[in-house]
Amino acid sequence: MYQPSGVTTSPELPIPDRMKAWVLGDPDQLELREKPVPVPARAEVLVRIDAVAICATDLEIIHSGSPASIQGGLPFNKNFTPGHEYMGTVAALGPDVDEFQIGERISVEIHAGCGQCKRCRQGMYTSCLNYGKPDKGHRANGFTTDGGFAEYAVNHINTLARVPDTMSDAEATLVVTAGTSMYGLTELGGLVAGESVVVIGPGPIGLLAVAVAKALGASPVILTGTRDKRLAIGRELGADRVININGEDAVAVVKQLTGGIGADYVVECAGNEATINQAIHMTNRGGKICLAAFPHDPVVMDLAHLVKNNIYAYGIRGEGRSATRRAMALMAEKRFDATKIHTHTFPLADLPTALRYARERVEDAIKVVVTNRKADAITRTAAE
Amino acid sequence: MYQPSGVTTSPELPIPDRMKAWVLGDPDQLELREKPVPVPARAEVLVRIDAVAICATDLEIIHSGSPASIQGGLPFNKNFTPGHEYMGTVAALGPDVDEFQIGERISVEIHAGCGQCKRCRQGMYTSCLNYGKPDKGHRANGFTTDGGFAEYAVNHINTLARVPDTMSDAEATLVVTAGTSMYGLTELGGLVAGESVVVIGPGPIGLLAVAVAKALGASPVILTGTRDKRLAIGRELGADRVININGEDAVAVVKQLTGGIGADYVVECAGNEATINQAIHMTNRGGKICLAAFPHDPVVMDLAHLVKNNIYAYGIRGEGRSATRRAMALMAEKRFDATKIHTHTFPLADLPTALRYARERVEDAIKVVVTNRKADAITRTAAE
Amino acid sequence: MYQPSGVTTSPELPIPDRMKAWVLGDPDQLELREKPVPVPARAEVLVRIDAVAICATDLEIIHSGSPASIQGGLPFNKNFTPGHEYMGTVAALGPDVDEFQIGERISVEIHAGCGQCKRCRQGMYTSCLNYGKPDKGHRANGFTTDGGFAEYAVNHINTLARVPDTMSDAEATLVVTAGTSMYGLTELGGLVAGESVVVIGPGPIGLLAVAVAKALGASPVILTGTRDKRLAIGRELGADRVININGEDAVAVVKQLTGGIGADYVVECAGNEATINQAIHMTNRGGKICLAAFPHDPVVMDLAHLVKNNIYAYGIRGEGRSATRRAMALMAEKRFDATKIHTHTFPLADLPTALRYARERVEDAIKVVVTNRKADAITRTAAE
Amino acid sequence: MYQPSGVTTSPELPIPDRMKAWVLGDPDQLELREKPVPVPARAEVLVRIDAVAICATDLEIIHSGSPASIQGGLPFNKNFTPGHEYMGTVAALGPDVDEFQIGERISVEIHAGCGQCKRCRQGMYTSCLNYGKPDKGHRANGFTTDGGFAEYAVNHINTLARVPDTMSDAEATLVVTAGTSMYGLTELGGLVAGESVVVIGPGPIGLLAVAVAKALGASPVILTGTRDKRLAIGRELGADRVININGEDAVAVVKQLTGGIGADYVVECAGNEATINQAIHMTNRGGKICLAAFPHDPVVMDLAHLVKNNIYAYGIRGEGRSATRRAMALMAEKRFDATKIHTHTFPLADLPTALRYARERVEDAIKVVVTNRKADAITRTAAE
Repeated sequence: MYQPSGVTTSPELPIPDRMKAWVLGDPDQLELREKPVPVPARAEVLVRIDAVAICATDLEIIHSGSPASIQGGLPFNKNFTPGHEYMGTVAALGPDVDEFQIGERISVEIHAGCGQCKRCRQGMYTSCLNYGKPDKGHRANGFTTDGGFAEYAVNHINTLARVPDTMSDAEATLVVTAGTSMYGLTELGGLVAGESVVVIGPGPIGLLAVAVAKALGASPVILTGTRDKRLAIGRELGADRVININGEDAVAVVKQLTGGIGADYVVECAGNEATINQAIHMTNRGGKICLAAFPHDPVVMDLAHLVKNNIYAYGIRGEGRSATRRAMALMAEKRFDATKIHTHTFPLADLPTALRYARERVEDAIKVVVTNRKADAITRTAAE
Repeated sequence: MYQPSGVTTSPELPIPDRMKAWVLGDPDQLELREKPVPVPARAEVLVRIDAVAICATDLEIIHSGSPASIQGGLPFNKNFTPGHEYMGTVAALGPDVDEFQIGERISVEIHAGCGQCKRCRQGMYTSCLNYGKPDKGHRANGFTTDGGFAEYAVNHINTLARVPDTMSDAEATLVVTAGTSMYGLTELGGLVAGESVVVIGPGPIGLLAVAVAKALGASPVILTGTRDKRLAIGRELGADRVININGEDAVAVVKQLTGGIGADYVVECAGNEATINQAIHMTNRGGKICLAAFPHDPVVMDLAHLVKNNIYAYGIRGEGRSATRRAMALMAEKRFDATKIHTHTFPLADLPTALRYARERVEDAIKVVVTNRKADAITRTAAE
Repeated sequence: MYQPSGVTTSPELPIPDRMKAWVLGDPDQLELREKPVPVPARAEVLVRIDAVAICATDLEIIHSGSPASIQGGLPFNKNFTPGHEYMGTVAALGPDVDEFQIGERISVEIHAGCGQCKRCRQGMYTSCLNYGKPDKGHRANGFTTDGGFAEYAVNHINTLARVPDTMSDAEATLVVTAGTSMYGLTELGGLVAGESVVVIGPGPIGLLAVAVAKALGASPVILTGTRDKRLAIGRELGADRVININGEDAVAVVKQLTGGIGADYVVECAGNEATINQAIHMTNRGGKICLAAFPHDPVVMDLAHLVKNNIYAYGIRGEGRSATRRAMALMAEKRFDATKIHTHTFPLADLPTALRYARERVEDAIKVVVTNRKADAITRTAAE
Repeated sequence: MYQPSGVTTSPELPIPDRMKAWVLGDPDQLELREKPVPVPARAEVLVRIDAVAICATDLEIIHSGSPASIQGGLPFNKNFTPGHEYMGTVAALGPDVDEFQIGERISVEIHAGCGQCKRCRQGMYTSCLNYGKPDKGHRANGFTTDGGFAEYAVNHINTLARVPDTMSDAEATLVVTAGTSMYGLTELGGLVAGESVVVIGPGPIGLLAVAVAKALGASPVILTGTRDKRLAIGRELGADRVININGEDAVAVVKQLTGGIGADYVVECAGNEATINQAIHMTNRGGKICLAAFPHDPVVMDLAHLVKNNIYAYGIRGEGRSATRRAMALMAEKRFDATKIHTHTFPLADLPTALRYARERVEDAIKVVVTNRKADAITRTAAE
């Protein structure tokens, strides 16, 4: 029986000592293992993971290792559990935690800053200068500390957002993505009502950027991409106009839709050389670009245009400034239907299949969710 | 006699009807002509120009035309008077102007926004959406409207800053440059006391960025460049450390000087591919880069590093947000000695020589000033 | 025929030379007179006024004179036309205006800053330092320059917002009020999604503050007041909880609804001593208060509580920072139904009756609108 | 010998197990007792206290109890050690601390937020919602946790600023006060170069607000007060003009010095009804007031003037947003001489005498410092 000292548990939510968790092996290898259930410290809770969405970054980590091991030159992190877009149920409380109660449903944001570096002291916890150093208190579950492709995980309380009863597990996993979109718009200034916003790239972050921008009153909201099916979903989520860049000149159309001057805000979620330069050229004087994606290799950029037009570019990786909670607030009020990007569900035991669907976009998969709940146990059994 | 209707003049400062002004001919041609003295409208004054500093952009405009003619696809702007870093004496007042008095010494910032577009309404007058449209009220003297290589110019009152008696004409011309440096630091957040600041490129804007950053308390202030003489001036202006990138690895040194994490703020004033990528790699997580220069051709950039590290990049072209007045305030209090970058003076009649000194960096010229005052008339005579 | 030089008119919208306008006489006297139709200058248009809402400030100006005459010690402003919450149709264009076309429906914000003072240069045009000085270019129609209780008015183009076809004239007059509410929330930080917001006072600004806060995702939104009917309208506009302070302790209830800590943001729209102190005591540490109303006499305030709890208080009078356009964007998308506060309509000729309804809250009047359109001419005849 | 588990010590700085500390008894009673030397936890260090300045708040706490006991309704906090403006030497390191080394001289800021509440997550650690709850990680040494009138104290590493060798112990204690002044100016916007700043009240925070404002380039800097000696020190610290309000009308003089419009920023450090209303009336449209002091009882305020003029008021209690580090940066560069407000020094054993000097302003005392260093041991013996 799991009963670490100083940790509060409840008989209504009994916790085993050991749990199943997917772990990295060699590159592109994942294995389902047993691990001890982790123990929450001060200001932390144990989360029973109920559902996890798969993000493109998960695929990258499984293929290339976690950012910490790559940047730090560490060996490929065997035994590491990826997965960062999850939700679940508070299962145990660390010492002195009374902000949450056992049994509450929560979703997470990824980053718990160290709380002691200069950036954390500024509230910029996603830019924590102790990134990747858990001994300093930094956690980025699924990136530098164990994540959500498991039965349990430990989370700092400031990474949690309550899930309303009216929201399904699957929808709650999408809050992390919506929070990233919200963060991008936050950093661009936040006051987008009545402003023109272009989103480039109808991936999950881009599609929810459309939804969040529209929910906040942006107008027009324009979405560019190459796949008509995705663009159609963008329309459903609030895009006033979609541009398939295979058939239209995105820069020209945006200018035409904005009285010739270009857009106030551009959220670049495609991350390739062509679209990055489109972003630069479709932004108006004094406008702003959020760079929410990037190519792995250096790109040729028309920087002169950016400088001459007083354009600012904000590189973001993930959420921040409590944007996840703002996204949750909008989703709780049903301001947009994030589930439109949720296409497939598999039991946690079928993670490899789920990953394949996500990687290869099988059946036009966008967001693939794996789930861990009793109801799914049946499915899992059936699947096995 | 100059006495336009509605304009206030003073017998103590008699104004001729016509003036001498340098004007563009074909590319790289400048001619000294006679032009009518311009007439100030509402909220404008007539400035008798006493001194003008030469900026690299002047050389570019003389060679390639003004930004308005280039961007607008207009023919090369013959009869246009360049020159934007000037100071002088208020010589006449437009209708209803009582904010300034005839005889006051003033220096200028370049941009008078139209005051009616969305960006001007936001206080972002250097990003005026009516840039280059004087009929909408926009002025950028020396760029889109006649500038300072002349005896007189018209300025909107919100582009003026009073020059204290203790400041020489030549020093006052440098306020525009210092204002650009101040603007860059303003956009980076402004609160640089105790923060690490790297300035890349010891041109005039870079050198004064060193001075302004130090005056505001930044520490350490690091300057990188390739010319030891320039770097030595940077030291005099407050750089705690200079790096000659021909001999040292700028990124490595900056990291070593900043506890391994990189600088909080980088002001990039060199504008070439190598230094732009250095800027990206020497900025810490959550840090900010001001792009105050740019290469004319597209550059290969490591954008992934910027995005992964939550770095923000601010393209600025010129001053803004009243930064010129803040720069003037620091200079009026002698917080730094901008005249260390002033190397040569010529009479206005010798503008071609002055331009040659600036272009070819004759005798290590940094800032070359042309002057129009009586005292200089003697010099001018002597020079003729 | 109205055809001033430099002004563009259209045969489809013929304009008379003279118009009917209500003007101030002695205090509390209003008279319907003939005046010349005013002439738009540069960056201005002539607006044919189609509808005007009555604001409490109108009643005050009719009773006590305009702010300019009061503050400036001027005699009571006879011949002045009040009215500032209006909408209409662009009827003529000042010189060089091409931003709008004749025939477009527009609503207005009140303040056109002078565009040349320090505050305007900062984008803070409602804090224009030339307030009340039309010769400096400042206009605040209905306050310092002629307003909307007339057939025509002149507006600076940066005070206009386009009205979509789907919005009625009456609804469009409410954009000014919604813009003030939006401005208050903007100054508090703008990012209210998921934050707790209390609105004190269910007058027009308070009720629309509820609507705007909810539209932006605030949660919970709490409204306090003394009249149950008004509070019920607040509920319809999005209040999650209403508090009748005659029966409940507002501070205690707000604390209980916010986990004991108090609200993040409080918008005080009642302006009396009791509610101002409630605002202070119901705001949490680091929270913010918008003071959108005020008592005419000094009040006893518990300032110590504000200081000890790091609370910031923002005095606003009217709209600003283009908030009116953001409000229009939300209303154009039907994010809330501002017409719930519109209770009565009268023809312009019946302005005195309309004012009485507004002043005495006849039949629970909230917003009373006077209208000038042909359709209403019939009503007017009937009413006469 | 002090050697707690997990804590790093050094033989060069041996630490006893028990220390001398002044503790509260009944109101206005202080006793020198022995206490165990406290133990630093994660992200904390043990500080050997070398010098402590006395603040008016210390006198208040000794008289009335700490804020936590007052607000929380707790009994008067016996055994509590006050004192919050101290500096010292790092004597031991908590687990995993490598940001500081034993032997480094440091000064402190007061607040270590809990790091887990909403406000801390925003970087607003001085508005921590767990204020006064050490079990949640909040510390405010000298307010809610043991402070500096002792031989040792524990500090969170994010409250430390390094002291340069060129700065004396006494000067280093003044960084906390300067940090509060800097914080006030930070919240007002920070970019004060060339802006008009009035400081009301020449107490320690007011005098250093003058110094910081001037160091950042504010102009003019005006100081008001009632004691000419204090005002003279204000002049030495950079005030361009001082106003003794016993002889001059502060509001009138400020208006006259600011072209009739009033000051851009006012820092109110006197905290009485008259000066608070002066602050309101001497601020220009759109200007800002920092309320850094307050009367204990409610005050009658002309709130209407504040609202009508779009004035914002920022209540601050103490430092925040790392302002202490910015203040240290300016002081390290000798931008102002804070020691001008340091008037008396006593050994720690003479704290009661030191407190009397501070309370009764004996010999015009401003800042009284108590010191704990060996050199002072002699003085202490002599004094006893």
